[in-house]
Amino acid sequence: MKKRIVIALGGNALGENLKEQMAAAQGTAKAIVDLVEGGHEIVIVHGNGPQVGMIETAFETAARADPHFPVLPMSVCVALSQGYIGYDLQNTLRRELDFRHIPTPVATIITQVEVDPADPAFLNPTKPIGGFMTPAEAELLRSKGIPVMEDAGRGWRRAAASPRPVNIIEAGTITAMLAAGQIPIAAGGGGIPVALQDGQYRGKSAVIDKDFSAAKLAELIGADLLIILTAVEKVAVNFGKPGQQWLDTLSAAEAERYIAENQFAKGSMLPKVQAAVSFVSAGAKAPQRNQAVQGTQAVRRTALITLLQKAKDGIEGKTGTLITP
Amino acid sequence: MKKRIVIALGGNALGENLKEQMAAAQGTAKAIVDLVEGGHEIVIVHGNGPQVGMIETAFETAARADPHFPVLPMSVCVALSQGYIGYDLQNTLRRELDFRHIPTPVATIITQVEVDPADPAFLNPTKPIGGFMTPAEAELLRSKGIPVMEDAGRGWRRAAASPRPVNIIEAGTITAMLAAGQIPIAAGGGGIPVALQDGQYRGKSAVIDKDFSAAKLAELIGADLLIILTAVEKVAVNFGKPGQQWLDTLSAAEAERYIAENQFAKGSMLPKVQAAVSFVSAGAKAPQRNQAVQGTQAVRRTALITLLQKAKDGIEGKTGTLITP
Repeated sequence: MKKRIVIALGGNALGENLKEQMAAAQGTAKAIVDLVEGGHEIVIVHGNGPQVGMIETAFETAARADPHFPVLPMSVCVALSQGYIGYDLQNTLRRELDFRHIPTPVATIITQVEVDPADPAFLNPTKPIGGFMTPAEAELLRSKGIPVMEDAGRGWRRAAASPRPVNIIEAGTITAMLAAGQIPIAAGGGGIPVALQDGQYRGKSAVIDKDFSAAKLAELIGADLLIILTAVEKVAVNFGKPGQQWLDTLSAAEAERYIAENQFAKGSMLPKVQAAVSFVSAGAKAPQRNQAVQGTQAVRRTALITLLQKAKDGIEGKTGTLITP
Repeated sequence: MKKRIVIALGGNALGENLKEQMAAAQGTAKAIVDLVEGGHEIVIVHGNGPQVGMIETAFETAARADPHFPVLPMSVCVALSQGYIGYDLQNTLRRELDFRHIPTPVATIITQVEVDPADPAFLNPTKPIGGFMTPAEAELLRSKGIPVMEDAGRGWRRAAASPRPVNIIEAGTITAMLAAGQIPIAAGGGGIPVALQDGQYRGKSAVIDKDFSAAKLAELIGADLLIILTAVEKVAVNFGKPGQQWLDTLSAAEAERYIAENQFAKGSMLPKVQAAVSFVSAGAKAPQRNQAVQGTQAVRRTALITLLQKAKDGIEGKTGTLITP
């Protein structure tokens, strides 16, 4: 059955630097084009953690060397990272599509994502960004008032506010591309965070979690399925502890119970499960639908958390963790 | 009469730094939304000279400070600049559209533009990029093998190869947006220069002239009119000399004669006139057309060179230099 699918690509699908990114993009392209060949409508959302950190570092270094050099707001750095990663992804997808003689256009849409300026997240930065630091480097930044955090046992990184997305400004263009049978890459890095102020969307100092933006986008464009790709094949409870159990399915109610039990790591599996639940629990389907999909009736929204390489098997119900309403 | 129009915005429509860019974008948005209100289909192409230079400088500075820092190829810097400028333009256009209660979506498409790797331009860098330098700074770069050039009497800048565009990879997405009544911002900075090699589009070290890319895009999407915005209201012959004459119209044949007489400054008016001629002289109209425009019959292709603030008057035949086949 043909589905409208939003895929959220994690950092491991993109690599940590330009060379790794280009190699990782090859594997990512193959897995995604497999789904295109399956007849599905695909929208790609990607992360930007290492990349936006690199861009910020470059501009900070230049500003230290030349006081007249512009310091770019975080929102602008996200915009640059969308161009940086989007170019690579669409280039590599084009190659894979051409190789399989599929003429489907693929392109990156620079995407602004609206957040609520009153979101409590602005008071408590929780999103790890940029490269890893030693504890001493982290302490130095903290002493300068720059928020830092320990990232899921992997080391210290800078921390940014991570408000929830409330709207995708360019959703209409993403829908138009889907209606034309094309593959949009959108809301990269979770989208450029903006909030309405005096009639204009103004950039906010924040990094929106790309899984939540993918969930919001999936909701707005009436997707059937949200696939959140990560470094494990399935979600587990008691992860890395006695009684570890891989989950084939997870209802929204079960997920909420596990979340209350702190079963999922902050900044890692927790936002993925939360994003999946937010999508399957969202209100009625949005009206915008491609005609090719309209014949499939009101499909129940589901979300899938799995490995990139298992996405195809996951759609066929063979693996991954399926989150249901 | 409603037209499909490609607008090429010059550097003066964007400003030299982030603050100037945001202020300049306001005026640009007003002028463009005037054309949208006139019922025209609009595609926006913009330059990126100062911006891509700033991005390159930031990464070069970071690479000097840390040898492990990635050095970004010129093609990747163009991709970043499309995100940087595109975000600002679409944000400011959204504000102006919302202010006038026009719901038309506007979005930036990350755009790759194909060049011929055998283009002789690769042997002779002629495109000024980045900020202005003193003659002494320019001489220092030249001594290191980095090409520099004097830019139209305005000072010294770095020089990049400027091959002609032969194809716009994402033209199908631009067409889909127009068909849906939307406003694409595309081929920013002339587009990310790529050439086909072993089945993949590979980034090339070059900067494509945005006026030529706008002309190629106008040709591919079957535009009626190409508007090249610049710092003067009309094209002149004997510019700044005795016998200076502002031109209301210019046929392709007249333009070729003036070009042979060196009437137009390299890197300034010359590429604009050449781009205008390449569009009006190009072959048959491309088939992709919005239905709203299809009723207008086979309109003759024309190009207009004028000031941003005079674009609306120019379309109405009141000012500017109209280039005809």
